[in-house]
Amino acid sequence: MYKIRAGIVGYGNIGRGTEQAIRRSPDFELAAVLTRRPPEGLVTDTPSAIKAHVGDAISLKGKVDIMLLCGGSATDLPVQGPEFAKNFNTVDTFDTHAKIPEYFNVMNEMSKKAGLISLISAGWDPGLFSMNRALMQSVLPNGAGCTFWGKGVSQGHSDAIRRIDGVETAIQYTIPIAAAVDKARKGESEGLTARDKHLRECFVVAREGVNKAEIEDKIKTMQYYFSDYDTIVHFISKDEFYTNHTSMPHGGFVIHSGRTDAGRQGMEFSLNLCHNAEFTASVLVAFARAAYRYHKEGRMGTLTPLDIPVSYLSIKSDEELRAEML
Amino acid sequence: MYKIRAGIVGYGNIGRGTEQAIRRSPDFELAAVLTRRPPEGLVTDTPSAIKAHVGDAISLKGKVDIMLLCGGSATDLPVQGPEFAKNFNTVDTFDTHAKIPEYFNVMNEMSKKAGLISLISAGWDPGLFSMNRALMQSVLPNGAGCTFWGKGVSQGHSDAIRRIDGVETAIQYTIPIAAAVDKARKGESEGLTARDKHLRECFVVAREGVNKAEIEDKIKTMQYYFSDYDTIVHFISKDEFYTNHTSMPHGGFVIHSGRTDAGRQGMEFSLNLCHNAEFTASVLVAFARAAYRYHKEGRMGTLTPLDIPVSYLSIKSDEELRAEML
Repeated sequence: MYKIRAGIVGYGNIGRGTEQAIRRSPDFELAAVLTRRPPEGLVTDTPSAIKAHVGDAISLKGKVDIMLLCGGSATDLPVQGPEFAKNFNTVDTFDTHAKIPEYFNVMNEMSKKAGLISLISAGWDPGLFSMNRALMQSVLPNGAGCTFWGKGVSQGHSDAIRRIDGVETAIQYTIPIAAAVDKARKGESEGLTARDKHLRECFVVAREGVNKAEIEDKIKTMQYYFSDYDTIVHFISKDEFYTNHTSMPHGGFVIHSGRTDAGRQGMEFSLNLCHNAEFTASVLVAFARAAYRYHKEGRMGTLTPLDIPVSYLSIKSDEELRAEML
Repeated sequence: MYKIRAGIVGYGNIGRGTEQAIRRSPDFELAAVLTRRPPEGLVTDTPSAIKAHVGDAISLKGKVDIMLLCGGSATDLPVQGPEFAKNFNTVDTFDTHAKIPEYFNVMNEMSKKAGLISLISAGWDPGLFSMNRALMQSVLPNGAGCTFWGKGVSQGHSDAIRRIDGVETAIQYTIPIAAAVDKARKGESEGLTARDKHLRECFVVAREGVNKAEIEDKIKTMQYYFSDYDTIVHFISKDEFYTNHTSMPHGGFVIHSGRTDAGRQGMEFSLNLCHNAEFTASVLVAFARAAYRYHKEGRMGTLTPLDIPVSYLSIKSDEELRAEML
């Protein structure tokens, strides 16, 4: 079996999860790990992989079939995506929902010019959840869908709390509100506000001697992040934080309720994740397989998970899939 | 907007549900309804649709873009599928799991020869559940999946009871067993037997004066249908039957639990259906849209839901989907 030669760009949580997921995929090999740090200092789990600085990516042309871009969407991908797309097939988890059309257009232009494939937003939301939203609305157009996230850790919200003066460290859990979930299942999600749908629970380690009431107030009134939600703030010790709040659970569900003549029909897709980054990386590798296949078929340009048949994600042949999965 | 001219072949529960689903799809029009009964006696909800005998299908060439085959898998589709594929794009819900590879091959030969598209097994299982089984296993290869059906009415099992001497009418509900569902969610589905996973509950109207104990015994020992399951039999009055047991609820869930280094990750897809046939028909119409698009692209041969990107199921443009669904 030909092994798809993968490159990992960015060796953080997602990058390390991707290395694991490649190990679980017998049709892949990890050919290279690219980092912005000095590459000689990088310790990976794959001794055979070339270590290189992101700035030297061009030296890997011909040695890597597809680059798995594991950076963040805020600052890494808008720069790295188009840059890598000039020379490599790429797949990424770009997740700034509002900027996806713009990112798509930039990537599409680069990939078409290069005669290569890029596949963007290949995580779970956007990604698997997007596929389900589109699938459900297509099957039951006379209906309403609703997405809930959690219970899980939001890195963005946790970071926002950590930036407050007097906060040593903090974590924020997004929690779906059961009453809203019930409404969505009954097809009554219309009009639900952000506050109706999710609760935000924060565990904060404060520095000694600071005014906790002031920190709590700063959190609860923080625009965009917390002011539109009911927010619970707990101050805890450093010990408790490191004992109980270092894992990265997440998940959520896409609910769609639609009407046919006989009544309401319900569809639901849910994830219950013990480790967000490792799961996201697993999705990324499956989509890298699909992207590589599209490339081998001579196609070019940018794709999203909405464009990918599930057969392209699987290591199995079409014959095997028909016999085992249908 | 061009309206895809659909033909419905077989005007039973699925056929009528398909007529409804077409009404909910502004890019479709119902061009024809074909039946094995005398067509002049057929009363449909769409006065503009041509009514024709299945034997006269050829007269509809050029008037129908795609035939939606709404017959059963046991006897109708094995004959009608290849026959219609000679002259029309087709989509069907062929659901005899074990015979799908064989049916695929026959249909593929016919459709390729005709230069047309056929899309088979486009219901919910096989169909949406198959897509999810393949998707989940691709994302988490180091894991185990499990499918549960119900609570819902099994037509096949209900029919089997009705064929017993002394039974006036009957209905059978397939019920997933909670302990098995819990095991599947924990990734411990291996080794679960048919009896562990589902319970069969039967409501039977017996003819007057018959030996009910004998009927109950015949049901519980019936090979293939009941003998491998725990089966509960209730004898009820005709009144109770028609008051409480005439709807067609169904549903089920595909559960997958896979391991990454940090632990177990869970994925789940579920359906909670008030009317099996109307939902199945809604799926069929979405896949008819996809099949027609493949045909317009000049492709030919047989496809299954595993080959279809969700964007092809949607009435929305790729740009709209990227902006609204990702």
